[in-house]
Amino acid sequence: MPQPSPWQTAIPSPSQTHRETALSRQGQLTKPAGSLGRLEALAVDLAALQNTDTPGADRISIAVFAADHGVCVEEVSAFPQAVTGQMIANFVAGGAAISVMARHLQARLEVINLGTATPPPTSDGVVDEAIAAGTANLARQAAMSTAQLEQALAAGDRAAQRAADQQAQLFIGGEMGIGNTTSASAVACALLAEPALALAGPGTGLDAEGVSHKVTVIERALARHGDNREPLVVLASLGGFEIAALAGALIGSAARGIPVLVDGFIVTVAALAAVRLRPDLRDWLLFAHHSREPGHTRLLEALNAEPVLNLSMRLGEGSGAAVAVPVIRSACALHNGMATFADAGVNNAE
Amino acid sequence: MPQPSPWQTAIPSPSQTHRETALSRQGQLTKPAGSLGRLEALAVDLAALQNTDTPGADRISIAVFAADHGVCVEEVSAFPQAVTGQMIANFVAGGAAISVMARHLQARLEVINLGTATPPPTSDGVVDEAIAAGTANLARQAAMSTAQLEQALAAGDRAAQRAADQQAQLFIGGEMGIGNTTSASAVACALLAEPALALAGPGTGLDAEGVSHKVTVIERALARHGDNREPLVVLASLGGFEIAALAGALIGSAARGIPVLVDGFIVTVAALAAVRLRPDLRDWLLFAHHSREPGHTRLLEALNAEPVLNLSMRLGEGSGAAVAVPVIRSACALHNGMATFADAGVNNAE
Repeated sequence: MPQPSPWQTAIPSPSQTHRETALSRQGQLTKPAGSLGRLEALAVDLAALQNTDTPGADRISIAVFAADHGVCVEEVSAFPQAVTGQMIANFVAGGAAISVMARHLQARLEVINLGTATPPPTSDGVVDEAIAAGTANLARQAAMSTAQLEQALAAGDRAAQRAADQQAQLFIGGEMGIGNTTSASAVACALLAEPALALAGPGTGLDAEGVSHKVTVIERALARHGDNREPLVVLASLGGFEIAALAGALIGSAARGIPVLVDGFIVTVAALAAVRLRPDLRDWLLFAHHSREPGHTRLLEALNAEPVLNLSMRLGEGSGAAVAVPVIRSACALHNGMATFADAGVNNAE
Repeated sequence: MPQPSPWQTAIPSPSQTHRETALSRQGQLTKPAGSLGRLEALAVDLAALQNTDTPGADRISIAVFAADHGVCVEEVSAFPQAVTGQMIANFVAGGAAISVMARHLQARLEVINLGTATPPPTSDGVVDEAIAAGTANLARQAAMSTAQLEQALAAGDRAAQRAADQQAQLFIGGEMGIGNTTSASAVACALLAEPALALAGPGTGLDAEGVSHKVTVIERALARHGDNREPLVVLASLGGFEIAALAGALIGSAARGIPVLVDGFIVTVAALAAVRLRPDLRDWLLFAHHSREPGHTRLLEALNAEPVLNLSMRLGEGSGAAVAVPVIRSACALHNGMATFADAGVNNAE
């Protein structure tokens, strides 16, 4: 009998007891009720997810999943495809945005190569999960086989296991892959039954003509794919290795009791696919930021998500999630460290 | 000959040279142009203001200005007036939100008492700048005399001098004063020629009836005050000691070359009065967060300000600014720490 796929493992329920204790504490701290806004909700959610009275986000695991996309032959990106491999080297060398942020946050950063068209200049320090030298061209055929999809989901699950081994309090998934906004937009269109025009955007920096061409390429892929909205079928047909791995990593984190801080457009697409596959995942997702990629708004609506930040970022790599970490840390510091009205001898509202 | 008032000292211009160098560096870092959004602009602004190629926000000075308001006899707050003094004690004891955040950020925190109705239970560690036991009732008479206004402005300026002595890279002003959203709303109405209804809100937590009563009180104050929009006259007539001190502190910080991170509703009103007094102050103000106090939107428009965060906070104390500090620190870390395309051997856009 074959092993069940990692995405089939049970996801625990957040602790209602710790949620109630946290809510009650928020009502006793020396501030008008509700005056810390989103910070109160973040601390309460984290207490419930971490099953604790003292939520925290000191130990963060960031996993950046990188892969190439066959659809790049359709000229859908402003950057050459070699950049995926080059950026893998930049991630481990410490020069990329997510590398700087990981150091700044004292977070654990790992870089996972799921397969590039051009090998990265270095593989030192890179987790090798290469499936193939990029996906097939999704405009003309399925991006990957079912076996490749299972490999990618399992690679994501292994990253979640490593985060659990490090006792991570919060998991961040990032991504890198030239062409991956095309793949992510196509996946989102198929899952949400939206036309390409509703979800395709400039990505790394296409002009209006470039976006228009990208829409045509995605429409061709959607016509080929048809109406099937089953998430595994959609991921194999239109996804990328890093997008599928992210879906596996998100489910794997939740299954291990680690809340996830979701980054921008690409990771939100992976989250949408993963939530369609496992609706009980939704409770475990906190949304870090609203990307400037226009399609992100529709995705956030579909997930009923209200991100913490809106800084017009559109970089990927997990960078938006990393920038949101200190907000969550502040929420926890306030929750755990403030005095109550009784402790401080301060009168509450009349 | 009398000394010139502190708010009359020269405010330097931000460095155009450092702005251009910072902009050029942002264009060379390994990311699509503009993809770090607001973080890029924050780093560039700070480079220009701090006159440096390596902007930073490690050394933060937070000054919380506290005072009572005679208008409290009109029953405009959900909290009893004794809370102002009690919270002063809570600030120095470390139990208030701003105390927790100051520790969390390793920032310098000082608490300045400009005069309370009920003395704080402790004065240990409090900077004593008491002017009177609160202002007069602004619904019936000028809140303070011209001499008291000068005292408050000078107290703010002294706080800025202490921040400069500590080589602060960023100044945050906070406030505490039961009733001070009434005073701040009145000041804003007078400066912007708006009716009370446009700017008054629930403050610490009034219900609809409470807000309606507050509007009536402010309208009475505005009718008494008349049409004079001269900022010093408006501050004396309708302001609070802590609001005037904040105006002095903001001008004093800019005059000493320290950029200011502006907190929420009350501090933005002080900023508006200060900018009306000294338009060259505007360049030195970064806006931390969009408060849930509804009138804040109109104030931000008047100052052409786009805050960094929007977390539905409405606490004051400088807490919103404190929560925004890590975003600015991230912006600096990325600006200073990322590799360029040339350094990392990564191809730029085609």
